[in-house]
Amino acid sequence: MEVIEAGPLLAGINSPDDLKKIPLEQLPQVAAELRQYIIDVVSVYGGHFGASLGVVELTVALHWALNTPDDQLVWDVGHQAYGHKILTGRRDQFFTNRKYGGLSGFPKRSESEYDAFGVGHSSTSISAALGMAMASQLKGDSKRQHVAVIGDGAMTAGLAFEALNHAGVSGSNLTVILNDNNMSIDPNVGALKEYLTDITTSKTWNNLRDDLWKILGKLPNPRFHRKMAGRLEASLKGMVSGSSNLFESLGMRYFGPIDGHNVIKLAETIKDLGKIPGPKLLHIKTVKGKGYALAEKDQTLWHAPGTFDKITGIINKKVPTQPEPPKYQDVFGKSIIELAEQNPLVMGVTPAMPSGCSLKYMMEAMPDRAIDVGIAEQHAVTLSAGLATQGMKVFCNIYSSFMQRAYDMVIHDVAIQKLPVIFCLDRGGLVGDDGPTHHGAYDLAFMRCVPNLVVSAPMNEHELRNLMYTAQLPETDVPFSIRYPRGQGVLPDWRSPFEKIEIGTGREIIAGQDIAILSIGHVGNFAQAACTELNASGIDCALYDMRFVKPLDESLLHEIARKFSKIITVEDGTIKGGFGSAVLEFFAENHYQMEVQILGIPDRIIEHGKPEELHHECGFDKEGIIQAVRIALGKDNKTAELPTLMQQHLSDN
Amino acid sequence: MEVIEAGPLLAGINSPDDLKKIPLEQLPQVAAELRQYIIDVVSVYGGHFGASLGVVELTVALHWALNTPDDQLVWDVGHQAYGHKILTGRRDQFFTNRKYGGLSGFPKRSESEYDAFGVGHSSTSISAALGMAMASQLKGDSKRQHVAVIGDGAMTAGLAFEALNHAGVSGSNLTVILNDNNMSIDPNVGALKEYLTDITTSKTWNNLRDDLWKILGKLPNPRFHRKMAGRLEASLKGMVSGSSNLFESLGMRYFGPIDGHNVIKLAETIKDLGKIPGPKLLHIKTVKGKGYALAEKDQTLWHAPGTFDKITGIINKKVPTQPEPPKYQDVFGKSIIELAEQNPLVMGVTPAMPSGCSLKYMMEAMPDRAIDVGIAEQHAVTLSAGLATQGMKVFCNIYSSFMQRAYDMVIHDVAIQKLPVIFCLDRGGLVGDDGPTHHGAYDLAFMRCVPNLVVSAPMNEHELRNLMYTAQLPETDVPFSIRYPRGQGVLPDWRSPFEKIEIGTGREIIAGQDIAILSIGHVGNFAQAACTELNASGIDCALYDMRFVKPLDESLLHEIARKFSKIITVEDGTIKGGFGSAVLEFFAENHYQMEVQILGIPDRIIEHGKPEELHHECGFDKEGIIQAVRIALGKDNKTAELPTLMQQHLSDN
Repeated sequence: MEVIEAGPLLAGINSPDDLKKIPLEQLPQVAAELRQYIIDVVSVYGGHFGASLGVVELTVALHWALNTPDDQLVWDVGHQAYGHKILTGRRDQFFTNRKYGGLSGFPKRSESEYDAFGVGHSSTSISAALGMAMASQLKGDSKRQHVAVIGDGAMTAGLAFEALNHAGVSGSNLTVILNDNNMSIDPNVGALKEYLTDITTSKTWNNLRDDLWKILGKLPNPRFHRKMAGRLEASLKGMVSGSSNLFESLGMRYFGPIDGHNVIKLAETIKDLGKIPGPKLLHIKTVKGKGYALAEKDQTLWHAPGTFDKITGIINKKVPTQPEPPKYQDVFGKSIIELAEQNPLVMGVTPAMPSGCSLKYMMEAMPDRAIDVGIAEQHAVTLSAGLATQGMKVFCNIYSSFMQRAYDMVIHDVAIQKLPVIFCLDRGGLVGDDGPTHHGAYDLAFMRCVPNLVVSAPMNEHELRNLMYTAQLPETDVPFSIRYPRGQGVLPDWRSPFEKIEIGTGREIIAGQDIAILSIGHVGNFAQAACTELNASGIDCALYDMRFVKPLDESLLHEIARKFSKIITVEDGTIKGGFGSAVLEFFAENHYQMEVQILGIPDRIIEHGKPEELHHECGFDKEGIIQAVRIALGKDNKTAELPTLMQQHLSDN
Repeated sequence: MEVIEAGPLLAGINSPDDLKKIPLEQLPQVAAELRQYIIDVVSVYGGHFGASLGVVELTVALHWALNTPDDQLVWDVGHQAYGHKILTGRRDQFFTNRKYGGLSGFPKRSESEYDAFGVGHSSTSISAALGMAMASQLKGDSKRQHVAVIGDGAMTAGLAFEALNHAGVSGSNLTVILNDNNMSIDPNVGALKEYLTDITTSKTWNNLRDDLWKILGKLPNPRFHRKMAGRLEASLKGMVSGSSNLFESLGMRYFGPIDGHNVIKLAETIKDLGKIPGPKLLHIKTVKGKGYALAEKDQTLWHAPGTFDKITGIINKKVPTQPEPPKYQDVFGKSIIELAEQNPLVMGVTPAMPSGCSLKYMMEAMPDRAIDVGIAEQHAVTLSAGLATQGMKVFCNIYSSFMQRAYDMVIHDVAIQKLPVIFCLDRGGLVGDDGPTHHGAYDLAFMRCVPNLVVSAPMNEHELRNLMYTAQLPETDVPFSIRYPRGQGVLPDWRSPFEKIEIGTGREIIAGQDIAILSIGHVGNFAQAACTELNASGIDCALYDMRFVKPLDESLLHEIARKFSKIITVEDGTIKGGFGSAVLEFFAENHYQMEVQILGIPDRIIEHGKPEELHHECGFDKEGIIQAVRIALGKDNKTAELPTLMQQHLSDN
């Protein structure tokens, strides 16, 4: 393990109290050391990069000027909070960031009292901080500060707007710091972005006010114009302080924009704002990746680059020794172009994840037909529904955990109207390092209970391509959901010819007699490996890739029920109400008496770690499946039921 | 059946084509006749009232000026679309509005080609119409109009903002008509409302522009000031047309405000706007309930008053001959005040439904502690989470179907952090007349799959009070969801002393031997009636009110499993992944071989009708339960399994 040394000032900061003892004029040095420390650690241990570099000065200024943790500081999204973690007593553990059992990559209430609100998804900070501010208001505490730090990208999500609309009339002691770097993970899009660029560059109202007073000074007869000038001034004041600014339209006092890399100015401003009661917004301009030239230049690449050589800037990449399977994301991104070339009705929509989901390829190739709507999952789905009314076949690609944001739109705008929108639920299942906020744990359950939806999950790249192909066929006139995991697939030779899959049909992967494994999605590969190993050891285990959670392949299930009495279901999703539960419902409805064991994500919050570590913890990796089969067949005793890591976890709790 | 006569002009309008033949100057008469017709029908047959009266002129103007259905007209929410339905060929069926088998109370694509997008929930119209406009853009059709009509209340929801942010940079041919009446169902709240009031009353920028030109005209030396004036003009123009207005900040050309009851001006303006390409917003001022004095005066009461005497304005109310059970809503609304009086940490939050959920009582009694955040479900939940971090016990009351909007906030902000927010899911189950968009059909399934949540449903008013009491106790440190139906309970003597319920405990209601019914929530009363009738006929049927879907009462379930082999579960929720499914999972996990039948809402869209009609259709009313028990015990044959209405429904389909 490489030990990272902190600079001399930073080494003495074990809590914000230490920071406060440092004089204002030394804050630039603190910021420089903090930036260097983040570069040093992330280059070796990986993690999010550009966002934290962009707010180094802000982080130092906030903890210097505020009285945290009594003052409440809420970081939106939270992948920019590395500096915050380092300054709040977690410097020495920081190398464990995002590792199994280590620090979370995001602020987390259970990790530190300085983490006022757990985050991960965007745009929650204003609502949360407003709640805290209202509680202080109720308790009669007028001195306490409540600060939300939110990026311009996150500001486009509806939740942020709802919160601003309320904050503007609340009278609560809330400070919103708008960290404007014109980026979310990909470049920010939308009218708000253009507005922010305008006010930053033109400073419209300041110019106007200056010009006006100069002109008024030239008027020949001041008395004659007094009344008119008075009216004009009132109008102007109304515009300048009231409605000229979008945020002031919404009742927030607006300050800025100021340079977000001038730590002294920031610290002074935050101190001053603390004396102004009521809801206010400070607009700061920052550069994502600030202080690391390559990261400033390619902000998307350096959002979370993995480990790298900090001197040369060369990102460490595993060099494959033989052809490797592609990422599911790229299979989606390249296959949608093939489909769009064949079918002029095909379109793609993503809410702010063109790189993450690989829609970027289509956005380059067919800019009119592939659209990034910004962080706006709700709009992405209802827009897709609107497009579908006109006959378009829209692939609306949303990460599973972000789809939780658009759930009503799936039900209300798509399913009830039976509009043939195609949902690609990327990052379905346990995502790994990002942890609980990003695990796609619930989608099979929450999609399955909605009428009219087809709910599917491919076992591999060919199946993904075929499901995508099937979903956009003219005869497919129902909403169609396809979920697949983050990361690499299993087939180096992934580009197969498209084939239609009959909706609601599964397939036998391995024939057997003793017990049947029913899998959905990519975990079918774990089951296949388990089956192969079991069959070699003399256990005659069958495997079925069901492909559809809904509609279930009922004729295949009847066949299975007639042949087997013991069933194990496997899914990379919650065991409550998911695929296994659907199988139970089928057996109950059809009066089969079966022994069914459901493997999947248990009903508790699964923390971060490598996907393999988490699959193992949850007991549905190859070993977990083997063990479950052996126990079901009476080959192992019960105590061995839980995989080692999970036993350990449970004994720790 | 009372036949309602239409006025002479209206009687001749069987489609918008007929309307277009009427000269502009006669539109006021059409509007007057349309208004009268709505009054005549709604007073006799019931339905939403105030909203449709408020847009009579707009409706006439739109169908006169646009080329519907080729031009796409999307009504937001849709309870204001009665005039639209009457003008688009549905006048003669209009008396069947909201009746079982009759017209929907909302626009619905399957009902008419003039209903461009199905609605019910608010704030979807801009996204949907933008999708339609983008499809036209792609197809190269620049003439087609795409119009979204949205109220100022609906404009506060995040989805509307997300859509505006996208529309403003889309260049699509979209017209948003902002129907500003300062009401949603209850008075609108928030900063946006205050902003709209400001711009309407001050007309800031118009005055400013006028004043400025007057002043510039007085300057002594025009040439001398040319440069400065030029700069000033550019600044002003930037403000007036660019950033002075909130909507123009977001890239929408802004027009208005204009009088929304001047049908001629409206018709002309809409025609004119059709010639201006790109995204634009027309701000009109209307009065909810316009033309019916009582409805103008008390807009909340007359939102949906039921039937009434149109001359006297007396609303028809059933006069009870004996004490009647209260509405669950009022039990909530009054009990929360009792709890708040005892516990200073108790607060109430509602997103725009203070009358509907009865939080209005607490808002009157304790205005600091009961908050209406406007149509902003997402914010309501995350705000509640923020309050909970400060120790507040927040009852966040959201209709079940609207909770779909805040699903991510339930998972991400409340459940993952295990914050003890109390969700009161009002209108859980089939709601009746409002139909599919408003049925609370999915909540038991989508809440159950989330870790850390307690998911409960009371069988009656006492249980509701006790669950509310339990949820706010200091020792209850988990998120707690309580769902109950719309409307009347079962206990006239509802105000019982509060008693703590152990979390995860059910109760035996009726002992029995032959078969066990397990119910959750209010349907326990149907089951109780069924059981009583069955037991009288010699079938020894047991009934358990499980109270908690999660955690399940496992010791009670073990007891039940040991005693019975046949189980019927009953819930007013989807049969996919809900309560019944949880019971199946328990039996599977514990290796019980049981025969389980799940009664609940089938996996298809249930239309509107009286709740009793819908319960019957779904087969979980008293008769349905009796039949299911008899079949399970072999007392009836299978063909009688389906209740009559459902058989009929299926044979119709």
